[in-house]
Amino acid sequence: MEKLIAQLNALDLKLSSIGFANALISYDALTQAPKKAVNARAQAMEGLSTFYYDAFITPEVKSLLDTLHEHLEELDHATKGKVRVLRDQYESLACIPAQEYAAFHALVAKSSVAWEEAKEKSDFSIFAQLLEQVISSTKKFIDYRGKDIPRYDQMLDDYEKGLTMAKADVFFDELRETIVPLLKRIQEEGMDIQKDFLDMSYDKAGQKAFSEFMMEALGFRMDAGILGESVHPFTINMSRDDVRITTRYQENEMISTIASTIHETGHALYEQNVDEDYGLSCIATGTSMGIHESQSRMFENNFGRSKAFWSQYLPKLKEQFPKQLQNVSLEAFYKAINVVTPSLIRVDADELTYSLHIMIRYEMEKRIMGEDLDVNELPKIWNDLYEAYIGIRPENDGEGILQDVHWSEGLMGYFPSYALGSAYAVQFVNAMSKEVDIDQALEDGDFKPINAWLEKHIHRFGSTKTPEEILLDATGEPFNPKYYSDYLVNKFSSVYGLS
Amino acid sequence: MEKLIAQLNALDLKLSSIGFANALISYDALTQAPKKAVNARAQAMEGLSTFYYDAFITPEVKSLLDTLHEHLEELDHATKGKVRVLRDQYESLACIPAQEYAAFHALVAKSSVAWEEAKEKSDFSIFAQLLEQVISSTKKFIDYRGKDIPRYDQMLDDYEKGLTMAKADVFFDELRETIVPLLKRIQEEGMDIQKDFLDMSYDKAGQKAFSEFMMEALGFRMDAGILGESVHPFTINMSRDDVRITTRYQENEMISTIASTIHETGHALYEQNVDEDYGLSCIATGTSMGIHESQSRMFENNFGRSKAFWSQYLPKLKEQFPKQLQNVSLEAFYKAINVVTPSLIRVDADELTYSLHIMIRYEMEKRIMGEDLDVNELPKIWNDLYEAYIGIRPENDGEGILQDVHWSEGLMGYFPSYALGSAYAVQFVNAMSKEVDIDQALEDGDFKPINAWLEKHIHRFGSTKTPEEILLDATGEPFNPKYYSDYLVNKFSSVYGLS
Repeated sequence: MEKLIAQLNALDLKLSSIGFANALISYDALTQAPKKAVNARAQAMEGLSTFYYDAFITPEVKSLLDTLHEHLEELDHATKGKVRVLRDQYESLACIPAQEYAAFHALVAKSSVAWEEAKEKSDFSIFAQLLEQVISSTKKFIDYRGKDIPRYDQMLDDYEKGLTMAKADVFFDELRETIVPLLKRIQEEGMDIQKDFLDMSYDKAGQKAFSEFMMEALGFRMDAGILGESVHPFTINMSRDDVRITTRYQENEMISTIASTIHETGHALYEQNVDEDYGLSCIATGTSMGIHESQSRMFENNFGRSKAFWSQYLPKLKEQFPKQLQNVSLEAFYKAINVVTPSLIRVDADELTYSLHIMIRYEMEKRIMGEDLDVNELPKIWNDLYEAYIGIRPENDGEGILQDVHWSEGLMGYFPSYALGSAYAVQFVNAMSKEVDIDQALEDGDFKPINAWLEKHIHRFGSTKTPEEILLDATGEPFNPKYYSDYLVNKFSSVYGLS
Repeated sequence: MEKLIAQLNALDLKLSSIGFANALISYDALTQAPKKAVNARAQAMEGLSTFYYDAFITPEVKSLLDTLHEHLEELDHATKGKVRVLRDQYESLACIPAQEYAAFHALVAKSSVAWEEAKEKSDFSIFAQLLEQVISSTKKFIDYRGKDIPRYDQMLDDYEKGLTMAKADVFFDELRETIVPLLKRIQEEGMDIQKDFLDMSYDKAGQKAFSEFMMEALGFRMDAGILGESVHPFTINMSRDDVRITTRYQENEMISTIASTIHETGHALYEQNVDEDYGLSCIATGTSMGIHESQSRMFENNFGRSKAFWSQYLPKLKEQFPKQLQNVSLEAFYKAINVVTPSLIRVDADELTYSLHIMIRYEMEKRIMGEDLDVNELPKIWNDLYEAYIGIRPENDGEGILQDVHWSEGLMGYFPSYALGSAYAVQFVNAMSKEVDIDQALEDGDFKPINAWLEKHIHRFGSTKTPEEILLDATGEPFNPKYYSDYLVNKFSSVYGLS
């Protein structure tokens, strides 16, 4: 058995070295690589994925994983996790022919660049053909599995083990029933909230300095990661000791930058606090998109849009931007950063309407995967849904269907985890509050007890537990979206002075 | 035969994808990666090198390369080049046990970081132990080849095919005979040259802006590369369409920054102008360190320290730095940037004394590889040689033995190619001048005819020709160092008003 475990660890390390390279290539591509680099990069990624595939998808590896799986109960926690993660990967990969798998990596490298150009020029036609190819490859890959389960159910499960359209429908229906009437009440009865000071110009250098200050204050280990800049903010990890987040600076949207930085720092803390003993490994990373998003949303919203938090940090923000903020009270600032405004851009959405943006993507993905839509119809479907759910219509594709990077990278089935993450976050915070005086910690700007709780119950496990296990063990109950809808109603009724 | 060539191309592409990843990881490590990243990066590089080794060092690849080599004359030019380059690589790699090869990559990743810290703190002891390990691994690897040729001769040949200690001794003796008496005459009889305006403070942003302007003016394709920042300037290429150079900005050493940028741009142009048809391949990069350095030295010295060049660019530099340079004439500027000052730092050395710095490294490497020196003695040997050859002694290891990155990366036998490159450069310029009015081109700031000549005779071939073939075909004769010594005597006699 020891010999088998050694083989597993050697395989894991080798595969992880390709993962490391791919992560760095992606980070580089999205932050600084020159335009012309795209073709050779696509060739290189194709070559690397061939190495990965050839080393992984072999009868020997299959038999190794199966044998270890038969003796699962004899294995230690980390090894169990590796077997589970690699078997899942094996299963979804083995059915895809090697050449198609390599070609898909090359395709995605190109489509990401096309998306970036299309977004810049607000021209969907630049991206349409490559998106079409990404969609059809994705469908084909799912179909190769030969399972009698709807495509999109399988995709949801890939990102969030156990999630199905049936469950997601229940969750979204519940959210819709909470958010839509609440939004209506806010618009009809809510008090006016002043936020003109947030719309003023804040210089980029100051935003950068405050972003770096914030990261460190939240517990980001500054010698184990960097803050970069990209069109769309993201977090990527080469290892727990090299976790990179990006943000983007817009002069008239300071609070959006800061919220992004806090959000990505939430992701980063998860990665930086994975058990050190796991080393470079498939288990040394967050377990699911939903749990990951719960960490980022918790920092962004539950902490980063709370009054307690800003009682500590508003004075610091004022030091950075005295001119713009000198006469702003804590109460006024708190309300301003929680203004509810139906808007077009997901990443700029307020906490309340955010899930509506996700619902739109969820419904589109359901249709894309279940039907044979013409890719050229997608912008119109997108715009119609925005009009129907949020009440406003994008004027161009840049502020419409082109706003998110995900589809260009083949990430479909991923969006629902964003909404799920917000709901998990509230459930976690509820459990945490039984052991930690969260408001006090926020008022003190002392993230040690908060991060200690998160590390103990969530972060350190990396991918060795499933999302369900994490939720159950950390909160004592399975996923319960009620915490989230209650939280939304309480918070926004209070912000808008509704009785 | 067609099938064999297809196999060769597939192998080449796969191996090049690892090369791509390694190049990016190195660039990242030296420009932005966080400190703590080092261990996981070393693990990842070890994993990648295992993939490389396992895919390359097999009986099948050996037989493929041998068979193609037997039919060399039937192959096209590019394929011939691939067979030659890969056979050379195979030969030096196959004798090294796989695990040791992987471990060496991990070692180098760590020693580079230790070197950086040691340099920062001027403390050789931080680096000593890892340097010791790099040296002993390097010796062992050479010895594995089992050749009855002195170690250092084999290492010189690795970087510059055909070079031996015997040949290098002749070259350096000749240089010493030229430079030492010339230097003495300059110090005794040469006119005083004013350069106080170069010692003034020049802001970093201005240096950066001028560096970018310069790169583009010299012909760097700005959409196929970037300018980064690092402790030690370097050039690295992921592909011909992604060539990265770095420089470093020191407020009181503006001209050193600009010279570095011009130097690295010379390297970059070589890489950017390799035949596009070669794609991602082992032949799509410069053929030897000596030829590479001839391109960088040519731009830095033969062009970038000429009067004709600055007749075009001094006015632009004055636009960037009006305060510091407004009263400086072309003549005064030209002399100032060609001042000869014996100094401690190689990369800041003037054109004349530069080769003395190389001679010191050459002599040390000869001893390190030929004898059993204690690594702790190296700083003293270094300092003694500086005193003997250049007449000044480093006061600490930061300005002594720790100044160069090369040894930390296992690059030994590499330095001599720097001096060789300067000599090649003059021979190339001499040949170019028969077809191109170089002074006119420089005065016009028109690098098209210059780059066209370089592309035609040198760049486009990548690694498909040996250094000897390049020299012979481009200049009509084998390497002749006389061009270089004549050039040095003429130029510096004139700068210093010696009859």
